[in-house]
Amino acid sequence: MKVVADLCIVPMGVGPSVSSYVKEIKAILEASHLNAEMHANGTNIEGELADICRLIELCEEKLSQLGVQRVFFTMAFSSRRDKEQSMADKLTAVS
Amino acid sequence: MKVVADLCIVPMGVGPSVSSYVKEIKAILEASHLNAEMHANGTNIEGELADICRLIELCEEKLSQLGVQRVFFTMAFSSRRDKEQSMADKLTAVS
Amino acid sequence: MKVVADLCIVPMGVGPSVSSYVKEIKAILEASHLNAEMHANGTNIEGELADICRLIELCEEKLSQLGVQRVFFTMAFSSRRDKEQSMADKLTAVS
Amino acid sequence: MKVVADLCIVPMGVGPSVSSYVKEIKAILEASHLNAEMHANGTNIEGELADICRLIELCEEKLSQLGVQRVFFTMAFSSRRDKEQSMADKLTAVS
Repeated sequence: MKVVADLCIVPMGVGPSVSSYVKEIKAILEASHLNAEMHANGTNIEGELADICRLIELCEEKLSQLGVQRVFFTMAFSSRRDKEQSMADKLTAVS
Repeated sequence: MKVVADLCIVPMGVGPSVSSYVKEIKAILEASHLNAEMHANGTNIEGELADICRLIELCEEKLSQLGVQRVFFTMAFSSRRDKEQSMADKLTAVS
Repeated sequence: MKVVADLCIVPMGVGPSVSSYVKEIKAILEASHLNAEMHANGTNIEGELADICRLIELCEEKLSQLGVQRVFFTMAFSSRRDKEQSMADKLTAVS
Repeated sequence: MKVVADLCIVPMGVGPSVSSYVKEIKAILEASHLNAEMHANGTNIEGELADICRLIELCEEKLSQLGVQRVFFTMAFSSRRDKEQSMADKLTAVS
């Protein structure tokens, strides 16, 4: 199932500042073959839901190696059957 | 990756009342082998992230058969490495 | 605007276990006049959006007094104009 | 309480394509005094939580005038006490 997702990954228990961890997540997302765009509160990513889930597991594994024992995730996404719509298409449609 | 997720599935474009669709989703979740508990705004479900994603795809496919062309999903979940914690454990810990 | 919300409050930077903090939040929600029901991943709460926001600020203030410097929140909610629907009504409609 | 929020507004029951409604929401957000940046899955907005809630109510009212009887919203936000951090600061910290 192809989706456009808004993914937010929150490392818990490692102090109020988490930017060093987010940098590592960013590197993993950028190294993937999925189209991903970071914004101020998360990352928009488009691809097969199963591929995005695998990427989430990679991020959690990396965070674990860095000492993060608990991670909170939010993901909002939509699927549609009436037409194909990329992240870019979504923004164009409302501009 | 084992997670406890809060899943919300929103059928779009089929009128303000969506309870008939939610009943179908409920039947799919209950027929799965995953532990799932519906609440007023979604369903708590525990299991491997990949299994939950497969279940989400089944729900979307069923909704599509019922004429829903677009579905919006939200999923919040956490993973932890310091200890195993079920949905029931989470509630017990704060009671 | 009256809403039925699913609220999740995540204390950041204070270790992987946050149940002692969630207990404090639970006490604040229960002491309010709003109808609130905790579940494994958050709390369903119904009321005016502005009242729920005030309650969120009370929770954040309490967490701050307990040493939590950063808090992550998620809130999913829906409003409807075609009919009144309580949390209990939502569950009844799909049972 | 000042927050940086990721807000997503989903008009329900009005067909799979909602871009005409999202354009109206965009106009309301841009006319406000709050700093708001639309992305492919929502809008990042920074300001007092109470101000953002008032803006949400304006959006719901406008959608209602356009015939949308039910609206689903998600909002993820964080507050922090250890330092001030704008949307721009958040992106700079991880670049």
